[in-house]
Amino acid sequence: MKKTFDAATRALPHVQNLHAYVPGDQPQGTGWVKLNTNENPYPASPKVGEAVAAQVGQLRKYPEPVSRELRTAIAERFGLSTSNVIIGNGSDNILDLITRCFVSEAGAGHTVPSYSLYPVVAGMSDKGLVDVPFTRDMKLDLDAIAATHASVFFLTSPNAPTGVAFSLAEIASLLERIDGLLVVDEAYVDFGGETAIPLLAEYQNLVVVRTFSKSYGLAGMRVGFAMADAGIIGMLDRVRDAYNLDRVAQAAALAAFEDVQYFEVQRQKVIATRERTRAGLDALGWFTYPSASNFLFTEPLDATGAKGAEVALSLFEHLKSAKVLVRYFPSHPLTCAFIRVSIGTDAEMETFITVVESWLKHA
Amino acid sequence: MKKTFDAATRALPHVQNLHAYVPGDQPQGTGWVKLNTNENPYPASPKVGEAVAAQVGQLRKYPEPVSRELRTAIAERFGLSTSNVIIGNGSDNILDLITRCFVSEAGAGHTVPSYSLYPVVAGMSDKGLVDVPFTRDMKLDLDAIAATHASVFFLTSPNAPTGVAFSLAEIASLLERIDGLLVVDEAYVDFGGETAIPLLAEYQNLVVVRTFSKSYGLAGMRVGFAMADAGIIGMLDRVRDAYNLDRVAQAAALAAFEDVQYFEVQRQKVIATRERTRAGLDALGWFTYPSASNFLFTEPLDATGAKGAEVALSLFEHLKSAKVLVRYFPSHPLTCAFIRVSIGTDAEMETFITVVESWLKHA
Repeated sequence: MKKTFDAATRALPHVQNLHAYVPGDQPQGTGWVKLNTNENPYPASPKVGEAVAAQVGQLRKYPEPVSRELRTAIAERFGLSTSNVIIGNGSDNILDLITRCFVSEAGAGHTVPSYSLYPVVAGMSDKGLVDVPFTRDMKLDLDAIAATHASVFFLTSPNAPTGVAFSLAEIASLLERIDGLLVVDEAYVDFGGETAIPLLAEYQNLVVVRTFSKSYGLAGMRVGFAMADAGIIGMLDRVRDAYNLDRVAQAAALAAFEDVQYFEVQRQKVIATRERTRAGLDALGWFTYPSASNFLFTEPLDATGAKGAEVALSLFEHLKSAKVLVRYFPSHPLTCAFIRVSIGTDAEMETFITVVESWLKHA
Repeated sequence: MKKTFDAATRALPHVQNLHAYVPGDQPQGTGWVKLNTNENPYPASPKVGEAVAAQVGQLRKYPEPVSRELRTAIAERFGLSTSNVIIGNGSDNILDLITRCFVSEAGAGHTVPSYSLYPVVAGMSDKGLVDVPFTRDMKLDLDAIAATHASVFFLTSPNAPTGVAFSLAEIASLLERIDGLLVVDEAYVDFGGETAIPLLAEYQNLVVVRTFSKSYGLAGMRVGFAMADAGIIGMLDRVRDAYNLDRVAQAAALAAFEDVQYFEVQRQKVIATRERTRAGLDALGWFTYPSASNFLFTEPLDATGAKGAEVALSLFEHLKSAKVLVRYFPSHPLTCAFIRVSIGTDAEMETFITVVESWLKHA
């Protein structure tokens, strides 16, 4: 080596201290019942395949840089204009753009527990992040949120990993009280939450974020979007990669978005399966948060009626050994006694319940 | 409006002052001879279509987060290990990751003229950028580059918009002399440049960046990559979106990369067409830089033998009125008398030359 470069000390100090986001397992083998990353159990609309195929011959050419067709379709659906919509390479990209534009020295804020990407995104931009803790009832503490004086507050509604949705009235009340931007991350809203979109007409300090990953069955395609005042969208656009969304992703998302009937059928199937699964857990006497999402956050009781972190971990590992993958969040007192189960097909959820029953018999 | 939010003053100060990157026109109509954004005139490998189709049924599931298969294939080809490679959502994404990780208060540096994204990327992270001016001979000024003491220096080789390649010896000499990282952006190297990859074994302060947009005909798919010391790659990975590359893009890039024979044939066709086109421009007595890329940067002479910004603009507009789109960079004295012509098919280049001849007759 003629010349050395010590990346560990030459990276910017905040990068040296970063912890990367840890995504849920994506097992590569077959035979898994995968209920760990809130994917849709049903494939994307058949129209997506046609739209993707139509792009294959065009791949040598750059994509349309501002995703105009997709933005316009979204704007029309929600009664907005194209200038109120920006598309991201997944909603994670959108959260990063918001952070890079609007998180000042005052820092960002989020509730805890919530989507574990917020600390990662704030850290990547070397910005502070204020935690607003939930208590077990998972109610929004409006006073505590307002008291953060965060330049941007991230709120997932319905929340993760609990599935609990917040009401439009609560969100409006929060918008009244805060100084900064409120980002309402509606990744799961299509499964039963109340959308904050109507509030955009009255509150310029609101950004509503959505994704195609869950309700549209396009997690593998990476498309998310934000809706806000045109001034906000214009600023986000300045820090967006000029070609952030490839041709195939633009076409796939548009096809999925426009197949309203397919969307509606799959969405209702997931909701119905969730309620059936919930009834199964209720029958076991387990506490499960009311879910407006495509997952359930439940507190297992073992055969002796005991609960807690050891019980939840035991169930998680038993399920994994039976090739049923769910999510376990050991690092917070409000999550460590729970498991989060994504809603799969009816057959997958029957397998889940069967394995739970075998755990109850043998654990 | 119950609550206002003035994005223009609430965005971070550096974002308020940003100018977005202006990509080359992507005309949506038909009938254009599109020689303005250095796209490959030939479609991507037919294997890409098969690989894309195979992903359509999988889109509901998240992609493999670290693009392992693609990284491994790239590493093997270039005698590196997987830990030496990171994949970006286009090489623009890679340049942003490098800036976010390694550009300190000392700022970044670049040559002028060069790829116009470097100022945009530096600006997005509120980092200074030192210009190292070229003179008309387009030789690297190693003293001036070393004197910037930039934490990261961006060098496009072969350069844009000139097409001029720098030698391995020059790049090695530069690596010896600088304190910071040297990013060699080899977007065009497959069309005749000398790659800096062999220098990775000796210089830990080197990052080589590549893209699938040009030589692999996948501009519409957004895939780029960087090769460097594992310590550097590990830092870049910390600021990467966890799922930055969708399933289809990973599969498409891998299929294109592995179809070596197709790649080689298309590459040689572009090079042969470039040399034929160059001979046509030489026959007109125009000065054209020696190009190791898939474009030519040429200084038109009008029918009277005059040259300069007005002449170049006149030709640009005449070509555009004939639906032949090339690129014109009016804002720098070393570029304003030139046009940049991407290499199309033989037929497209014949059209280009024919329209040039009609301009010479009628301008």
